[in-house]
Amino acid sequence: MSTITRTYLDWNATAPLLPAVRDAFVLALDLSGNPSSVHKEGRAIRAAVEAARRDVAALVGAQASHVVFTSGATEAANLVLSPSFKMGRSALSVSHLYVSAIEHPAIREGGRFDKADVSEIAVTAAGMLDLAALEAALASHDAAKGLPMVALMLVNNETGIVQPVAEAARLVHAAGGLLVVDAVQAVGRIAVDIETLGADFLIVSSHKIGGPKGMGALISRGEVMMPKPLIHGGGQEKGHRSGTENTSAIIGFGTAAVEALKNRDAEAQRLSVLRDTLENAMRAMAPDVIIHGADAARVCNTTFFTLPGLKSETGQIAFDIEGIALSAGAACSSGKVGESHVLTAMGHDPKLGALRISLGAATNEADIDKAIAAFAKIAGRRKLAVQAA
Amino acid sequence: MSTITRTYLDWNATAPLLPAVRDAFVLALDLSGNPSSVHKEGRAIRAAVEAARRDVAALVGAQASHVVFTSGATEAANLVLSPSFKMGRSALSVSHLYVSAIEHPAIREGGRFDKADVSEIAVTAAGMLDLAALEAALASHDAAKGLPMVALMLVNNETGIVQPVAEAARLVHAAGGLLVVDAVQAVGRIAVDIETLGADFLIVSSHKIGGPKGMGALISRGEVMMPKPLIHGGGQEKGHRSGTENTSAIIGFGTAAVEALKNRDAEAQRLSVLRDTLENAMRAMAPDVIIHGADAARVCNTTFFTLPGLKSETGQIAFDIEGIALSAGAACSSGKVGESHVLTAMGHDPKLGALRISLGAATNEADIDKAIAAFAKIAGRRKLAVQAA
Repeated sequence: MSTITRTYLDWNATAPLLPAVRDAFVLALDLSGNPSSVHKEGRAIRAAVEAARRDVAALVGAQASHVVFTSGATEAANLVLSPSFKMGRSALSVSHLYVSAIEHPAIREGGRFDKADVSEIAVTAAGMLDLAALEAALASHDAAKGLPMVALMLVNNETGIVQPVAEAARLVHAAGGLLVVDAVQAVGRIAVDIETLGADFLIVSSHKIGGPKGMGALISRGEVMMPKPLIHGGGQEKGHRSGTENTSAIIGFGTAAVEALKNRDAEAQRLSVLRDTLENAMRAMAPDVIIHGADAARVCNTTFFTLPGLKSETGQIAFDIEGIALSAGAACSSGKVGESHVLTAMGHDPKLGALRISLGAATNEADIDKAIAAFAKIAGRRKLAVQAA
Repeated sequence: MSTITRTYLDWNATAPLLPAVRDAFVLALDLSGNPSSVHKEGRAIRAAVEAARRDVAALVGAQASHVVFTSGATEAANLVLSPSFKMGRSALSVSHLYVSAIEHPAIREGGRFDKADVSEIAVTAAGMLDLAALEAALASHDAAKGLPMVALMLVNNETGIVQPVAEAARLVHAAGGLLVVDAVQAVGRIAVDIETLGADFLIVSSHKIGGPKGMGALISRGEVMMPKPLIHGGGQEKGHRSGTENTSAIIGFGTAAVEALKNRDAEAQRLSVLRDTLENAMRAMAPDVIIHGADAARVCNTTFFTLPGLKSETGQIAFDIEGIALSAGAACSSGKVGESHVLTAMGHDPKLGALRISLGAATNEADIDKAIAAFAKIAGRRKLAVQAA
């Protein structure tokens, strides 16, 4: 049996359930009934689902009736990244999708667009969307074929860098296009308001804010213009997404949304102090460490760093052995520890190793102390290896 | 406050969590970690997910590696009902979908097929697929355009009638086509074996067998021929279905599968006795009651009946007031209490009212006694109304 106490610093991959969410989720398990049933059990669980919808809407300043619950952010992305929309009863055609070069694979894969109809927009060396490149791409868009759609994340999952969404929204709307914003890594960390951002659609995920896995939402600014359904069937979610509602997960997501909003600013302050302590110690121990996005506007909880001479795979295993769970970039696909497309887009050598430490609600000073001690050991070993070579 | 003890007899709409599932599910909530992460937390939850995959495969005699977890049966249906397949690295085209006239809306809507490429196959007055009609449809299929796909449920959700799947499989395969079997209402009630049935794909749902909602699977007989993904992104589920795995729901589904298999025959025997008691009492009290499919092979737990003169809506509300949760057909779409397409397909007047009582693991004799008492009251009132008119 292992006697090492584990320190979980991979909150951007998935956040453990918040205690309040766990309580609400477990209670909800005992609400039997299908929310589409009209009997008492059905009506009781329907009421709980609709309360959660209001809570999730409030997280991003949207209207409850504009929230479509999905099985996660990836499904929400595949629902909205579609060439076929409805504007009321009329069909609306979207002919091209423009995604930033640092989007999550759920967005980069382009959903229901043909690969030929998806283009990447460059980011700057500072890791932010190149607004001039976006403007140029929109200027060359052929509006005769259909509308342009732009997908941009609010916060990058690897670096934590905040993207210029409101500025992008102005360009997109001036070109008559639609803006989809992946707010998965932003909610609970910074203020997110669908109106202020100018997003036509926002994507959020439950398990990244301490809610249950298998739950997310597509949230629209209006309700007239919606993508054609991805999942057809019984007509749940006003016909936008069929399938029996995942009721306990929806109720848990609602609670997570309430918690994320309630504690947001205090938590951001607390985590940024811990993050700065960690980064200062890292710099002191290894002056050659590169902290990606250190000079950019970043969320409070993410440190994405390169220790020259340390490969991603080696580093991740070394920290794991020291009892620290961290990540080599995104944990999006099964067990892949590959090159970071985010660093490549920022102009780095694709072979550059990098590791991500991401903090969350349960992270405390002791965790940071352990991370610093592990870093010291691993960075020290690297020096010896370099000297021996 | 209501003092009526509720009697839940709507298990075909959704089954309350089995106690063993609830325990496993709640334990799984505390396994933090993303199964795509390579650290210790990620590996632990990956192992639990793969164990559940073996348990779900065993439920239908399939190989674990042929199970693709989805957010439910509806998503699984939309994944497999696709004109675009891959056979290894080659593309395979399916040009037409044939569905029985009594399929669930998740199937009848035709998934990713154009409406023009979906045809219905008639059922007999006895509520079973008309095999001659299927044979004729397949004979007139234009194979030059692509393969035919047939979708047929193993057990109808409204009547409980078992469909002639193995016979249909022989016709479909003789025509070079693919057979998709919706086994949602069959697993846990009758033996389901993917090889014996000759199904190319099976669809199962977790919450219908006492597992968590928001979870299902598409299970294939082979692994070479698979539909193009519906949900693109990080490449989970071997690329067939992206999105962070809904780990606790998967683990709960695995436990539900084990329970469903373990108790199947004894439970079927127990429930059929309860069901027969109920139906005999109904017939004694109201000799004009029509029990749909009473002469057909039915699963153990379902009674779909018409009490002449009682509308579906009125009947459902009347039973609800008596403390009995039952259903007017499928609970598939939000609050609709409409005409049953199943009864229409069986040749009945579409306005014929019908109610469904469906039993499950927690149903006992006392529940049946209450249902009989409620039936007596409601049937009696109907007589008075008829006499007064």
